[in-house]
Amino acid sequence: MNPPDPFAQRLAAVATETDALLDRLLGAEPAEGEIARPQRLLDAMRHAALGGGKRLRPFLLLESAALFGVSRDGALMAGAALECVHCYSLVHDDLPAMDDDELRRGRPTVHKAFDEATAILAGDALLTLAFDVMARREVHPDAELRVALISELARAAGIGGMAGGQMLDLAAEGRFEKKRPLGEDAIAVMQAMKTGALIRFACRAGAILGNADAKACAQLDLYGAAIGQAFQIADDLLDVEGDSATIGKATAKDAAAGKATLVAALGVSAARSRLNKLVAQADAAMATFGAKADTLRAAARFVAQRQI
Amino acid sequence: MNPPDPFAQRLAAVATETDALLDRLLGAEPAEGEIARPQRLLDAMRHAALGGGKRLRPFLLLESAALFGVSRDGALMAGAALECVHCYSLVHDDLPAMDDDELRRGRPTVHKAFDEATAILAGDALLTLAFDVMARREVHPDAELRVALISELARAAGIGGMAGGQMLDLAAEGRFEKKRPLGEDAIAVMQAMKTGALIRFACRAGAILGNADAKACAQLDLYGAAIGQAFQIADDLLDVEGDSATIGKATAKDAAAGKATLVAALGVSAARSRLNKLVAQADAAMATFGAKADTLRAAARFVAQRQI
Repeated sequence: MNPPDPFAQRLAAVATETDALLDRLLGAEPAEGEIARPQRLLDAMRHAALGGGKRLRPFLLLESAALFGVSRDGALMAGAALECVHCYSLVHDDLPAMDDDELRRGRPTVHKAFDEATAILAGDALLTLAFDVMARREVHPDAELRVALISELARAAGIGGMAGGQMLDLAAEGRFEKKRPLGEDAIAVMQAMKTGALIRFACRAGAILGNADAKACAQLDLYGAAIGQAFQIADDLLDVEGDSATIGKATAKDAAAGKATLVAALGVSAARSRLNKLVAQADAAMATFGAKADTLRAAARFVAQRQI
Repeated sequence: MNPPDPFAQRLAAVATETDALLDRLLGAEPAEGEIARPQRLLDAMRHAALGGGKRLRPFLLLESAALFGVSRDGALMAGAALECVHCYSLVHDDLPAMDDDELRRGRPTVHKAFDEATAILAGDALLTLAFDVMARREVHPDAELRVALISELARAAGIGGMAGGQMLDLAAEGRFEKKRPLGEDAIAVMQAMKTGALIRFACRAGAILGNADAKACAQLDLYGAAIGQAFQIADDLLDVEGDSATIGKATAKDAAAGKATLVAALGVSAARSRLNKLVAQADAAMATFGAKADTLRAAARFVAQRQI
């Protein structure tokens, strides 16, 4: 048996706490101002949000916030809000009209376990819940700061971020007109929007919660941008080289769908060296924080090397 | 030619200003923190948001706020955020997996003018934009107040409000299991969630923006709840009695789909007298505001009598 890996332990601890928090936020009891929580919709939201994700984004938010001595409870609440956005995006991306996936983390996707209408509504309601949660006083007592988080989250998730990135990705597949392969730069923009923006937000949010100065915010932003790109390249490598039983979803699907990826554009070997360069960039961005940032350094390597 | 109706003029003025604001918010230029605004997604969002709605919810918000001397610009911005939520809900409700509508305000619905994937994303991005907009300083300089608006909007729109109401409505049609006709009370709960919650929020938001005291907030809440119900009964009467060419969407569709409505449960004549009672309730809730509330009184009659 291997000795326990402190990084893996920290990641697992955040996942456990985030799961517990999401479980509580998705309880049967209506919140103040709500009229009722229809069971079927709640079940679908719970299926989407409590399916055993790694909770990487809440972890990055929490560890970024920890650099500035932010209370764990506030960061966990902000992380749960962010995870609601991530989970909604998976539900909608899996829909038949989008990527048409039947499996997610080894379980049926929401529209398979329920139906399409319920999946659309569950995604909508999770996105809405994210802003409800981010607005709560438990995130941070200062309302100015919560409003800043809400604004940044909305920009990261909306037309100029994640949703826009999904649009560009579908367009690159040739859904709407004749397919024109994207160049390396256009792929980078698409990925910075589709997956990068939320990861980058996670790191920036930690700095915002910690009332960090402009320089520290900029370092976290650089770090987040680097690991966002690394995450996507690792994901694309996994699609090419991974084993579907381990990953819990279909592999080699992106290539089959003609998805625009840097791995396809650069080749596997150049993509691997790009990945190493991004990890070095993330490390460099953490230089000013010293040993306090060791977990974030380990997170960069984890993101680049992940097998699932 | 009829003399100009001051109420209609006020309503039209808010619609014009809201259209202009939404046009600006949905401009081609990315906002700060956004990476790019993909043209196709922007076009679909504009199709959804700039299709010539009456802008009833922004109007109610603005007129409620006016009772407390709130600046018109702040209320218009909050109204635009609210209208983004309303427009997103129409896009998603019209989807083939939901109500499967091809026409909205006399124009093709978003998934007809574009495609399903684009419509799903356009709805998602409009919902996200709503919170971006509500977080802006232009709504009100006090961040505590903006956070309160964001929280109430999320609760009105999410599982415990609008999205939950759509779920109950689909369930009542017998989508998921054998159809069991809803009783009058269950229909009222479903409608209070599906359409009532946003209308009620509009009126409450005016009071929040105006830093109204608890009593005034409660009066606006009563008013909003009454006209929310009146709006839905009028809408259901229109479906039974209206002319599709005037309304710009299919009629007699609800009855065909077996939708649960109070008109079906009570009959047309009892529904009409319920409507009159609700207008009287809305009037009574405005009693303490005197002549200042004349426009809101006229709005209650407008909602009950609307032909389109």
